[in-house]
Amino acid sequence: MPPEPHSVQPVDPGPSLAVLALLGVPEIRPGDDLPAIILDGLVSTPGILPLEKDDVLVVTQKVVSKAEGAIVDLTTVEPRPEAVDFARAWDRDPRQLEVVLREARRIVRMEHGVLITETPHGFICANGGVDASNVGPESGNIVTLLPVDPDASAARIRAAIRDRHGVDVPVVISDSFGRPWRWGIVDVAIGVSGLLPIEDLRGAPDRDGRIMRSTVRAVADELASAAELALGKTAGRPAAVVRGAALTRGEGSIRDAIMPAAWDLFR
Amino acid sequence: MPPEPHSVQPVDPGPSLAVLALLGVPEIRPGDDLPAIILDGLVSTPGILPLEKDDVLVVTQKVVSKAEGAIVDLTTVEPRPEAVDFARAWDRDPRQLEVVLREARRIVRMEHGVLITETPHGFICANGGVDASNVGPESGNIVTLLPVDPDASAARIRAAIRDRHGVDVPVVISDSFGRPWRWGIVDVAIGVSGLLPIEDLRGAPDRDGRIMRSTVRAVADELASAAELALGKTAGRPAAVVRGAALTRGEGSIRDAIMPAAWDLFR
Repeated sequence: MPPEPHSVQPVDPGPSLAVLALLGVPEIRPGDDLPAIILDGLVSTPGILPLEKDDVLVVTQKVVSKAEGAIVDLTTVEPRPEAVDFARAWDRDPRQLEVVLREARRIVRMEHGVLITETPHGFICANGGVDASNVGPESGNIVTLLPVDPDASAARIRAAIRDRHGVDVPVVISDSFGRPWRWGIVDVAIGVSGLLPIEDLRGAPDRDGRIMRSTVRAVADELASAAELALGKTAGRPAAVVRGAALTRGEGSIRDAIMPAAWDLFR
Repeated sequence: MPPEPHSVQPVDPGPSLAVLALLGVPEIRPGDDLPAIILDGLVSTPGILPLEKDDVLVVTQKVVSKAEGAIVDLTTVEPRPEAVDFARAWDRDPRQLEVVLREARRIVRMEHGVLITETPHGFICANGGVDASNVGPESGNIVTLLPVDPDASAARIRAAIRDRHGVDVPVVISDSFGRPWRWGIVDVAIGVSGLLPIEDLRGAPDRDGRIMRSTVRAVADELASAAELALGKTAGRPAAVVRGAALTRGEGSIRDAIMPAAWDLFR
């Protein structure tokens, strides 16, 4: 079994949860002050203020990357031969593949038209999180990279909310990842601030008093997925407040949510 | 890229979503009429009735398996030598391992104390979904198996709701699965009725009019994860209504959510 249990006591959730998408957030451009824009969205969306003590804010990767300038203009990219060959075989853009390979710490799979890499953060995902959809109008040659330090991105938004509203709201940065064995993508956490992304219940008793041996809840990932259900892929909604979820506050890092290589059976 | 796009038009979600856990559901025992018990829970939980047209009911695997008698008394199980050896090396129960191996269509990994198998349904998961926690008081030797046909389990609950309330509410059966590369478990769908578990947006335009090439939302999995945030692992809450999620109704099957073996790079 992976890392030693360092049990937290289970926090029983409240019986209901709400997900409230921020409305009216404008198209984000490089250099925009995203925390300030999100503060405006919190104010202008009915039903969100006052913030509550069990709120979490989920912000999607795309707007974080754009605001931080984590974008690449593909017209400036010269693909290596390996990228050109793979792109030709599988009807892909060789320049995007080149960007993925440049960003990669390690290639996990490059076959069947699928490029899965390990990013500098330690995430393993398709195209290293480099993405072309929903980057803005008239931006056919722009791709977004993952934020350089998504925990820090989350921390900046959290600090802005605390400064303005005096409430410490944990923040999750989310992105859409595929999974082996299952079809489709789900939103997961790629950065956190103010909460433990993993709630380790190993060693705690279950409802019948039996010690749980494998119950490690990936709470931040579930928050990201819950938010996606109110954000969708095409509605231009980049952030949501999740209200009422059971979670453990603390100075967690998304690194806590990455499987240590020594325990990873699917390198 | 996996299966051909058979695009659905994106359904923009409403701007808010609620998850309402059913309260007061009693301990479930083999032979119990689970659909009837859930109907009672819908009535007795404030705020759920009348059911709305965008409701989905999520029911956790444990109560489905118990009601259907998909359980094994470990005192009746004689482990094979392979199970005994692995259990001894990794401090596990050889009888539970034996049950997992009996149920398995294929062993995917059996190392480091971890047994990952492919179930007869095609799911790939730790211990083939065989689970010992929260099976009820004084049941130290009882484990649950996955339901034999979780789509059918979902369909029976959906039919009972339709008969009683005249509303066609899609139903998702959920279970907690680990994922390669990431630490912790999230709830995913293992059975569905009345919705398409996968919303395939490939070929549809994104917000900027660009054709999306890889956007296949695993909506049923996200519904399961959202529900888990209001259910938890220890509060004795086996079901929740998710209200307001964008989804596509239809006679889907959880088989649609399983990656075809030909496209699976992590067999």
